[in-house]
Amino acid sequence: MTSPQHIRDTMTRYLEKVDAGDIDAIVALFADNAVVEDPVGAPAHQGTEAIDRFYRQGLGAMNVSATLTGPVRVAGNNCGAMAFRIDVAGGDSPGSIEVIDVMEFNDDGLICSMKAYWGELNFTPAAIQ
Amino acid sequence: MTSPQHIRDTMTRYLEKVDAGDIDAIVALFADNAVVEDPVGAPAHQGTEAIDRFYRQGLGAMNVSATLTGPVRVAGNNCGAMAFRIDVAGGDSPGSIEVIDVMEFNDDGLICSMKAYWGELNFTPAAIQ
Repeated sequence: MTSPQHIRDTMTRYLEKVDAGDIDAIVALFADNAVVEDPVGAPAHQGTEAIDRFYRQGLGAMNVSATLTGPVRVAGNNCGAMAFRIDVAGGDSPGSIEVIDVMEFNDDGLICSMKAYWGELNFTPAAIQ
Repeated sequence: MTSPQHIRDTMTRYLEKVDAGDIDAIVALFADNAVVEDPVGAPAHQGTEAIDRFYRQGLGAMNVSATLTGPVRVAGNNCGAMAFRIDVAGGDSPGSIEVIDVMEFNDDGLICSMKAYWGELNFTPAAIQ
C-alpha cells in the first residue's frame, strides 16, 4: 500500500518535471514494466525503454509548460487522478491542451500505469501573432 | 463508436442532474449492466437496480451542489474524464469534495462504467458557523 500523500506528491512532482522537460526525472518515477497510454485509445508504451522514447520524442521535441488546474485526487487501490493544462509554444501546432491523467502505483511507490484523457475537443490553437 | 460531442454533452448533463438531485435522470444515462465504482477502491455497484439504490441512498439523502471545474476531456475508446467539486450543505459532514470521474460509453451512447477518484485528502470541511 502506497500512502495517499506519496501518490499526491509523486503526481505533483511528475507534472513539475513535465513542465521542466526533465525526461530522466520523469522516467525515474515509473516502474520497470509500467504502461503509458497517452492519449487513451492510442497504442500503449510498455517498459522503461518505450516510455523513455515516448517522452523524449514527444515532450523532448517541444517547448512545453504544464500547469495543475486543481488538487490531485487520491482514491483507493493505489490510484490517483489530476487535471492540468499543457501549453505548447512554437512548433507546428502551438496551443493549449486540457488533460486528465489517471495513475496507478505499485507497492514500491512507483507509477505502474498512466492513462491520459484528452482529444481533439481539448485542444485550443494559439491565437495567430 | 459514440461521438466525442455526445460523450462531452452526456457527462455535462450527468453533472447537471447530480446538481439538481434528479436521480431518475441520472440512472437513465447508464446502460443496464453498467458498473459504478465511487470512490475507486470501494465495492462496485453493477446494474440498474444497484446503481439506482447507490444514488438514492447517497445523493438522494443529501443537500448537494455540483460544479464542473474544467472542460470535459474526451479520449478514444469511448472514454471521457472530468474534474468537479461537490458541495454538501448540512447533514453530518458538510463540506466540499474535489472529484474526478472517468466514464466509458457503449456504442448506444450510454455510460457502461463510471469510476470516481477522490479520497480523504480531497475533502474540506465547511467552516463552523
